[in-house]
Amino acid sequence: MSTSGAIPIRDAGPEDWPAMWAFMREIVVAGETFSWDTKTSEEDARAGWFRHGQESGFTVVATGPSGALLGTAECGPNHGGPGAHVATASFMVDPRHTGRGAGRALGEYVLDRARAEGFRAMQFNAVAESNVRAVRLWQSLGMQILTTIPEGFRHPADGYVGLHIMYQRLTPA
Amino acid sequence: MSTSGAIPIRDAGPEDWPAMWAFMREIVVAGETFSWDTKTSEEDARAGWFRHGQESGFTVVATGPSGALLGTAECGPNHGGPGAHVATASFMVDPRHTGRGAGRALGEYVLDRARAEGFRAMQFNAVAESNVRAVRLWQSLGMQILTTIPEGFRHPADGYVGLHIMYQRLTPA
Repeated sequence: MSTSGAIPIRDAGPEDWPAMWAFMREIVVAGETFSWDTKTSEEDARAGWFRHGQESGFTVVATGPSGALLGTAECGPNHGGPGAHVATASFMVDPRHTGRGAGRALGEYVLDRARAEGFRAMQFNAVAESNVRAVRLWQSLGMQILTTIPEGFRHPADGYVGLHIMYQRLTPA
Repeated sequence: MSTSGAIPIRDAGPEDWPAMWAFMREIVVAGETFSWDTKTSEEDARAGWFRHGQESGFTVVATGPSGALLGTAECGPNHGGPGAHVATASFMVDPRHTGRGAGRALGEYVLDRARAEGFRAMQFNAVAESNVRAVRLWQSLGMQILTTIPEGFRHPADGYVGLHIMYQRLTPA
């Protein structure tokens, strides 16, 4: 258990999954921020979100005062072998609990823990430029836009928008 | 079956796997160009290389005059759902058959077929900058370096080198 500000973050366990999937499913189906198949099955979602469990990496949840889950994040190597020293991470915050700092708490936690686990850098592969709040949040945590894939994301309302690749060095040069 | 120059390219089938893995394993173990775990199991390699078989995407082999396999490529969506209109691809050429044009033939074929299958762009996520021949080849086929992840690849001899993200639009603007 770790606290980032007032929001506790802890490793996610199998018992958390039903409450996680309840809001994760909404986010995946909406297709507004996440580049997953909007029909992703619960089984595939669970396997993807816990994929780093047996190797390096981790899956965590942010909890509210009553113990309710506010959001979740997963982090692990972005590539294998000769590329495994750069981490990547994904984040989902329950739409009913946005604006309470869970995203920021998860972001700070993930960057700190990735650094502590020895990752040399953090790379986000797919941040929709239409997800302005997320882009600003990650920038405020030190992530920089390295490039933007032109029209890389098809937003259900906005149409094709750019898909940012964001990056931050975690170790001293 | 399609020919790109003098080198035939065809869909890979299960019967091709043993001959594919014979050289793919060498490339993975060497860790000089591919960002896979150098201890990747044959089972995981096969699942990864044929991952697009049931959805959009394809896995192909380039063959020599005697029917021997010269190299292989796989292509499919780089992300899911709202990001699935951008393709990605990976290539391996048998080290005993480099310099015969198999890489170029595979590259041309993959770009053409991805365009024909409706992908709007091609993105390579991890081209080690030390792999100069590959970088030049992809550039000659219209791929551009969008950005370079600093020290994103750990080459066994050269140490940390940049990891290019390369991109090409496939449809008219």
